[in-house]
Amino acid sequence: MEYQAIPLLNLIEQFESLPGIGKKSAQRLAYYFLQMDKERVDEFIEAVADAHGKIKYCKICFNFTEDDVCAICDDRKRTCGIICVVETPKDVAAFERSGNYDGLYHVLGGLISPMNGIGPEQLFIKELVARCGESEKGINEIIMATNSTVEGETTSIYISKLLKPLGVKTSRLAYGIPVGGELEYADDITLRRALENRNPI
Amino acid sequence: MEYQAIPLLNLIEQFESLPGIGKKSAQRLAYYFLQMDKERVDEFIEAVADAHGKIKYCKICFNFTEDDVCAICDDRKRTCGIICVVETPKDVAAFERSGNYDGLYHVLGGLISPMNGIGPEQLFIKELVARCGESEKGINEIIMATNSTVEGETTSIYISKLLKPLGVKTSRLAYGIPVGGELEYADDITLRRALENRNPI
Repeated sequence: MEYQAIPLLNLIEQFESLPGIGKKSAQRLAYYFLQMDKERVDEFIEAVADAHGKIKYCKICFNFTEDDVCAICDDRKRTCGIICVVETPKDVAAFERSGNYDGLYHVLGGLISPMNGIGPEQLFIKELVARCGESEKGINEIIMATNSTVEGETTSIYISKLLKPLGVKTSRLAYGIPVGGELEYADDITLRRALENRNPI
Repeated sequence: MEYQAIPLLNLIEQFESLPGIGKKSAQRLAYYFLQMDKERVDEFIEAVADAHGKIKYCKICFNFTEDDVCAICDDRKRTCGIICVVETPKDVAAFERSGNYDGLYHVLGGLISPMNGIGPEQLFIKELVARCGESEKGINEIIMATNSTVEGETTSIYISKLLKPLGVKTSRLAYGIPVGGELEYADDITLRRALENRNPI
């Protein structure tokens, strides 16, 4: 398609490199941008530059924040004795969206994955251990909410072993059939987990 | 979700305002941008600004181009006597992708739509008539390739009436069952069109 102008091709390529955006969506987005007002384009560019320039990690939980400490860590109304440990800031967003949790978080920034050369020292694990060790913080439970992949499980077990000597209770999210999901469509591993973790009624 | 940093919320909102991007994709994209290298972000921003700043309409066919005249109008190897009339530059991209057409194009920049206050004078129709009228250009056929909506049909009929006195042959794209499509899933209007335009075998 060398008949297309190079700046347009570049823009399509840029969109195509983003997650979840295929060839056709990238084209559509690029054409959409060409027909936008200059003002709207500037606004968009500013939002991208701003977010990338101003957002940093929270000093306590390593979630994204504009300030030194994020709004969750700074919120005195939340239950402070419990920390939910997640892989990424996106997972914090998922919990907050659901509105079912009012404790604190700790973002690991990844999972232990020897295959990809990621060891515990590259994650915010020692910071989690330090948080649990400071008695004035009164942390008494850690919920491991990493994904149920090999890396997620390994990380979860690694961390719970580290925390045991500190006398902190650790738990793991329950895995099973999603609510509203049909048995027929559940994969084998989910079914096995659902059976293993069955509850008395 | 006011626990999220404002620059992050802004960025999510910006992505959400783009076509075909929902709430979840917008979140995913925003988080992806936060974890990008500064260089990649700058590259992206430059591509957006560049495309918007440098791309203009081709003086002849009103497709997007970086120069005064687009690569298609400038290509001496193409069949010059035939013009395919489309609504947007995206439609040109679709034809070029298919590789089945080697004539010229004319982009209308929209369709006649009294409901939305768009009359013929707001579109590049008089420019099309002028192109067909210049005898040295030797245009002898116009293919109307506007969508098969009311607006598309109206525009198509309006233009063919204008061109009749100039002795230019006008034709319309064929509408029918898409190749590979199943009858069962064809909508009523497509089925009617397919019946009306049936071909002898």
